[in-house]
Amino acid sequence: MSNKVRIALDAMGGDFGASVVVPGAAISLTRHPDSEFLLFGDSALIKKELEAHPALKAVSQVIHTDVAVSMHDKPSQALRRGRKVSSMWLALEAVKNGKADVAVSAGNTGALMAMARFCLRMLPGIDRPAIAAIWPTVRGDSIVLDLGASIGGDEHHLKALAVMGAATASVLFDLERPTVGLLNIGVEEIKGGEEIRAAADLIRAMAQPPFDFIGFVEADGIGKGAADVIVTEGFSGNIALKAAEGTARQIGEYLRAAMSSTLMSKIGYLFARGAFRALREKMDPNKSNGGVFLGLNGVVVKSHGGTNADGFAYAVDVGYDMVRNDLLTKINQSLHRNGAEAHGVAPAA
Amino acid sequence: MSNKVRIALDAMGGDFGASVVVPGAAISLTRHPDSEFLLFGDSALIKKELEAHPALKAVSQVIHTDVAVSMHDKPSQALRRGRKVSSMWLALEAVKNGKADVAVSAGNTGALMAMARFCLRMLPGIDRPAIAAIWPTVRGDSIVLDLGASIGGDEHHLKALAVMGAATASVLFDLERPTVGLLNIGVEEIKGGEEIRAAADLIRAMAQPPFDFIGFVEADGIGKGAADVIVTEGFSGNIALKAAEGTARQIGEYLRAAMSSTLMSKIGYLFARGAFRALREKMDPNKSNGGVFLGLNGVVVKSHGGTNADGFAYAVDVGYDMVRNDLLTKINQSLHRNGAEAHGVAPAA
Repeated sequence: MSNKVRIALDAMGGDFGASVVVPGAAISLTRHPDSEFLLFGDSALIKKELEAHPALKAVSQVIHTDVAVSMHDKPSQALRRGRKVSSMWLALEAVKNGKADVAVSAGNTGALMAMARFCLRMLPGIDRPAIAAIWPTVRGDSIVLDLGASIGGDEHHLKALAVMGAATASVLFDLERPTVGLLNIGVEEIKGGEEIRAAADLIRAMAQPPFDFIGFVEADGIGKGAADVIVTEGFSGNIALKAAEGTARQIGEYLRAAMSSTLMSKIGYLFARGAFRALREKMDPNKSNGGVFLGLNGVVVKSHGGTNADGFAYAVDVGYDMVRNDLLTKINQSLHRNGAEAHGVAPAA
Repeated sequence: MSNKVRIALDAMGGDFGASVVVPGAAISLTRHPDSEFLLFGDSALIKKELEAHPALKAVSQVIHTDVAVSMHDKPSQALRRGRKVSSMWLALEAVKNGKADVAVSAGNTGALMAMARFCLRMLPGIDRPAIAAIWPTVRGDSIVLDLGASIGGDEHHLKALAVMGAATASVLFDLERPTVGLLNIGVEEIKGGEEIRAAADLIRAMAQPPFDFIGFVEADGIGKGAADVIVTEGFSGNIALKAAEGTARQIGEYLRAAMSSTLMSKIGYLFARGAFRALREKMDPNKSNGGVFLGLNGVVVKSHGGTNADGFAYAVDVGYDMVRNDLLTKINQSLHRNGAEAHGVAPAA
């Protein structure tokens, strides 16, 4: 790693491409002046955007390609059409070749994950990738993973998620020993879920894990901040995330309707509009933008496709933090201190 | 079935027992005067409560037992200690013996499900039970199942859930052909979830199903009212429900904090308090109280343990509607018109 954090950006990803990616990078640069950027995509478009951001332009290199992965491409299509040539692939390849420390894309999740696996390969000791993201809770932020990269998985997969999630939380939240919980349902003694109980045993048996395991957490515990890291396989994780997002949107609609229902409520809204603004800011999905792909031999951050420049800047910030705090080394150390050898993986040199 | 709807109540279930069950039944009776009740539990306590509700007392029979299943009993403990003698068991047995049309309990879910399976047995053609409940959406109420009775399940299980859920929605919402969606995650072409795709094929292949199948729904579609019935296995269903409940509680806390943060916001709250009251009512969890146990050879409704009399009354209402609209017959007809024979089950006579 050079002294600067070198960030590769897929400047054609997401719903708005360079018009969000470039201003987003410019915002992040003001927070982290020790960043530099590789911008992959249509150079005419990118350079036009860069004109408005001279500070960013000074630390950026533009690499032209006119092949973009569309938001609707299936992973297999994206690989067929976009391998070696698309802005998404080239950003990942820059990480692989050591030209960048992290890749950030707002492109489509399935395509990005497929390309990232293909290009960067998995970490030794990890079979399947995961997506982790920040989940705002009443006690501060937590990390939840896997949000949908891999469906299902045995106790070893869940243990690997715990290790990777804990490393992510310690990097992003600057925690010495994050708490880790396994997502489960409350009903006892019914069949199924054996792999979750087995994972709990496996995690408890770890020698000196760099986190505190607190056992099972039900899904209503996530928003309470029951643990710094919530671990589950990708299907349930995605269901939890989408159910929470849907509920937040639903209540937002109810609230708007209630506040505009009567003259009195409209007057009330005027008085309380500062409070409503603070509430809106608190619930701003941009602030928790930036899904981290874990388990890969390289750092990749996925931004929401529909985000704005502020949101994209948060995703770039996440990438910066990962590199600055050496996420991959922490994950590797945790994995190999704790019996990855038992599964036929040589310890990292 | 007699002309009256005969409702068996576990009067010792839940956090508050008879002091919630009896007034709750009294409220439901005002809405459905053609109900009558069997009240199982400590007769001294029940009769004391009944004194305040003469109309209910006139249509109730009290059957004494002093054995109650505790909210903390594991299913196996509950069966060992409470079989044949507890208020929970006796309410279920009344349904089995044809003395009641439906049993309602606010007792613990695992124990109630275990006893219900043991006492009532499964419907022919159904291997595993499910819990369905009403989920309020921006477009009105939907039914979501399974909320945690059975973990996992193949395509035949998911198809059975679709059939039972559709019958429940048509009974509770008075719909000719409810729409049915299968809960899934959006990422394409990743491994896993084959049983969900197979279930979609199986449901599409049904001859004249009494519902319209709309395909896959993501978890943020539930609150949008994407379908009248959302089908998923019990682990994901429980995760979705708890994640939504947790998010609603979290936003409620944010909102309360925001409204009391400044003098201006407090004044605003005073003006808008009618709107806030309406909002609170809209989000009142009591209103969607009443989980229906499906797949059993009898109708059983589970109330939240911590609910109040209003909430318990809604659970009794749900039981009443199920019986009045002949849920079990509808489920049996749907199941046996649609190839349950193919799985070695004789059609209903």
